[in-house]
Amino acid sequence: MDKIHRYERMAALTKLLTASPNRIFTLSHFCDLFGAAKSTMSEDIDILKDVLARYELGKLDTVTGAAGGVRFRPSMGRAEATRMIGTLCRELNQPSRLLAGGFLYLSDILSTPSVVRAMGVILADQFYESAPDFVLTMETKGIPVALMTADALGVPLVIARRVSNVYEGSAVNINYVTGSSGHIETMSLSRRAVKAGQRALIVDDFIKGGGTARGMIDLMDEFSVHVVGTAFVMATASPEQKRIQGEKSLMVMDAHPDNPETLLVKPAAWLND
Amino acid sequence: MDKIHRYERMAALTKLLTASPNRIFTLSHFCDLFGAAKSTMSEDIDILKDVLARYELGKLDTVTGAAGGVRFRPSMGRAEATRMIGTLCRELNQPSRLLAGGFLYLSDILSTPSVVRAMGVILADQFYESAPDFVLTMETKGIPVALMTADALGVPLVIARRVSNVYEGSAVNINYVTGSSGHIETMSLSRRAVKAGQRALIVDDFIKGGGTARGMIDLMDEFSVHVVGTAFVMATASPEQKRIQGEKSLMVMDAHPDNPETLLVKPAAWLND
Repeated sequence: MDKIHRYERMAALTKLLTASPNRIFTLSHFCDLFGAAKSTMSEDIDILKDVLARYELGKLDTVTGAAGGVRFRPSMGRAEATRMIGTLCRELNQPSRLLAGGFLYLSDILSTPSVVRAMGVILADQFYESAPDFVLTMETKGIPVALMTADALGVPLVIARRVSNVYEGSAVNINYVTGSSGHIETMSLSRRAVKAGQRALIVDDFIKGGGTARGMIDLMDEFSVHVVGTAFVMATASPEQKRIQGEKSLMVMDAHPDNPETLLVKPAAWLND
Repeated sequence: MDKIHRYERMAALTKLLTASPNRIFTLSHFCDLFGAAKSTMSEDIDILKDVLARYELGKLDTVTGAAGGVRFRPSMGRAEATRMIGTLCRELNQPSRLLAGGFLYLSDILSTPSVVRAMGVILADQFYESAPDFVLTMETKGIPVALMTADALGVPLVIARRVSNVYEGSAVNINYVTGSSGHIETMSLSRRAVKAGQRALIVDDFIKGGGTARGMIDLMDEFSVHVVGTAFVMATASPEQKRIQGEKSLMVMDAHPDNPETLLVKPAAWLND
């Protein structure tokens, strides 16, 4: 193979690192791939670190120790995150989104890849240090944003089901009380899905009373899994007191002060910190 | 801002283009961002095109015309795709994956971001030229791979539900016959989700008889949407005659010739073409 220029190597290195978030690559891996000396690759990595920081395109971490190397962590500048969530709120406040019964049409937003990818990066950024082993969600609407959060964290997604089915093998079922209606519902997770002692991050689309989230925490208890955090796309302002505490949401939905029959969606306060 | 070197610009350019698959960026966009001349940016893009091709990291397309520019299309070399699917088949052929009733445990594979991302890239690569406007899937297990396929194609994901619910607004419901059990089931899609005249790519996790896929095609008929293709993670070898035709699957599952009570998973034949 011909000698490769630094500007060519930088392009390939960027693609490889950013396409596998949180995967640790050894320096030798890249030295072999590009036929470059360790000192040269080290310089390349320092350059990439600076470029990503300068344009707020994510973080490059150097991990020391026996299993050490370099990893890419998706991240979004706070200004861009605030702008992106602000744009989304303006879109969601369109009157055409109001459905019969005072509900808000969110399904398109929740399954547009570029939107859920951005949300996943913002949420993952809050939990890198908590080092979850997997992301847990409850079917169905939270799956896309939970998958993108798991992707940014470099961990698997685990999906709790409403019913256990033959494709999942033996399962643990729990009953929980939904916060909104007070109904008893069932949540099911395959015994194979997680291991005792692991750490879970819960991600879902919506939190109102917190009953479903409480159910997911109880389900993790059954598996002796520690929940490191809970994150949602949308929280309702009321009830203020939810069945869980310390949740992180991207947006808050409230009755409109000038018109109590319509809704007002706002970015969550912590985004402006 | 200090003058930026080509090797720095190449890193930022690569990240920006590869993080937004199929989005067309104008040359001026990058000229403004980097303070570079058009001729310089043109050279950068040619270099990136060559590097991506050399390391089989995807394709950079130049789009001419008024809305022209440059776009990144995720793509995987055929050798790497075959290797990746082969590794997956070996994993799925582990006896520990067999469940009671002769079913195969697939849930972990279907929600591991790096795995579904690779599958999404392989599937999207088959349908770029068909230019779908969205990807359609049926809840639940196909959602992650369908989302990653939609992401690679740069289009929204649309999720058909088993029941219509208040959060989706008014919906079109159809009944369909499942291929495996012959039961009548219902499939529901919000009226707002798609528009007449659009083009759909159907992506799901599993096809046996093809009843669910047939149902999705009929559902699209109700919306006057043209189905450009159907793609699946896993197809069963039997029945050979399915209720749809021309589907593209990544893997095929058959009874093991030496032991009819167990299963054998193989890469689909077209991957070796």
